Amino acid sequence: MEIITSNQNSRVKIWTSLQTLKGREKSGTYMLDGWHLVQEALNQAAPIQAVIATEEQMDQHLIDVPQGVPAFQVSEEVARHIAKTNTPQGIFAQTSLPNNSFDPKYVHNGSWLLLDRIQDPGNVGTLIRTADAAGFSGVALSKESADPFNPKVVRAMQGSQFHLKLVKEVDLNDWVDKLEANDYNVYGSTLSENSVDYKTVVPEKNFALILGNEGQGIDPEIQAKTSENLHINFLGKAESLNVAVAGGILMFALN
Amino acid sequence: MEIITSNQNSRVKIWTSLQTLKGREKSGTYMLDGWHLVQEALNQAAPIQAVIATEEQMDQHLIDVPQGVPAFQVSEEVARHIAKTNTPQGIFAQTSLPNNSFDPKYVHNGSWLLLDRIQDPGNVGTLIRTADAAGFSGVALSKESADPFNPKVVRAMQGSQFHLKLVKEVDLNDWVDKLEANDYNVYGSTLSENSVDYKTVVPEKNFALILGNEGQGIDPEIQAKTSENLHINFLGKAESLNVAVAGGILMFALN
Repeated sequence: MEIITSNQNSRVKIWTSLQTLKGREKSGTYMLDGWHLVQEALNQAAPIQAVIATEEQMDQHLIDVPQGVPAFQVSEEVARHIAKTNTPQGIFAQTSLPNNSFDPKYVHNGSWLLLDRIQDPGNVGTLIRTADAAGFSGVALSKESADPFNPKVVRAMQGSQFHLKLVKEVDLNDWVDKLEANDYNVYGSTLSENSVDYKTVVPEKNFALILGNEGQGIDPEIQAKTSENLHINFLGKAESLNVAVAGGILMFALN
Repeated sequence: MEIITSNQNSRVKIWTSLQTLKGREKSGTYMLDGWHLVQEALNQAAPIQAVIATEEQMDQHLIDVPQGVPAFQVSEEVARHIAKTNTPQGIFAQTSLPNNSFDPKYVHNGSWLLLDRIQDPGNVGTLIRTADAAGFSGVALSKESADPFNPKVVRAMQGSQFHLKLVKEVDLNDWVDKLEANDYNVYGSTLSENSVDYKTVVPEKNFALILGNEGQGIDPEIQAKTSENLHINFLGKAESLNVAVAGGILMFALN
């Protein structure tokens, strides 16, 4: 097994480039950090380009890595460089990005979460993890949303990218039109003149829920073509909820 | 009005010390960062020791600061030093910590959220904001929870500390005993042999809900004395929910 001790190594340069969108798109891969995520990728038979680990982590986990998956041992310093933190666990997997081509006209079954320009990586990751827990089939992210393979999103998703379909940089206008053409109810989440309390909606098997940008909410053009817009009634004085919390409340109530 | 341009100024030293628990306890104050929070403190007539702003922010907002509240103009550099970020809005208020003495034996009305060692400041702040939105009367935090006046918590609370009662470093055993003595149902949130689906619980006017540590959940000793333990049924493959999302789902379902 190759042992890498220099941050100048050409593989290390590729691995650190995965911290950026450009680096991920160029290589068609992203990084999983920590055994919990690496193990989930192995369990779900995700396409892994390389397992990278410090000596200590390699000793513990190499036995669980299938033959044929290239393994590289790295120094603690290289591990910190790849993780961009001072205290990485010391095991990583370079993993292929999923195929992003997906046409909503083929969606006839299962619930979908649509994210309109959600920008905080922690919110995006938590929403995808919550959609997974609530049994959604997929999450589609508009342009200007945080990239779902950004390291902060990957940490917050906790492996949910292996359990549901993720599609990024979608045209939400097109998605809403096609889902509605397939008899989906598409719910906006917003407080407006015509919005209704989410508690009055009867749960369904197949629907789509749109959540909007942290500051601006859902694009008015998209909001105008939803089947219904839902709001959450507040009993207290807070002006708003965190979008990941609001999303959790709506996903678990509707599904 | 005093104009401060040096980070060595004795007031600036006190203001930056509020980033730490020690500094907050020594002065009995904490810092609000940004006009939105400063305005909410003024609206709620919170006891403010000082309003601190850059020239630009002072020009915009001094008119809204009541006479008698000391105002200090600071340079951009001092503002960055106080905020510990490179891009502060440039307006702050040094505010008194609320009185922390509170005996749960006097609680006969309103719902309470009890946090057992929730450690992530973002989670603590988001949970307090969500409790406010859900109409809770107060939040009690055990020892080893993130301090609710830590700057990251203050940012995530978005002013909810002015809308409900916050009590920190409580003995949760004592709280559960006294609330139950006052005929409160105290719900744990945990998956266990005897836990029930939260959707089967009939909403009540007065109850308490306990949320536990991100990794370990609720202390078993406390869990054993709850009225009932609730779990959230997952339809998908995710193993867990973020505690702030789980808290939001439970608070809005129960209240």
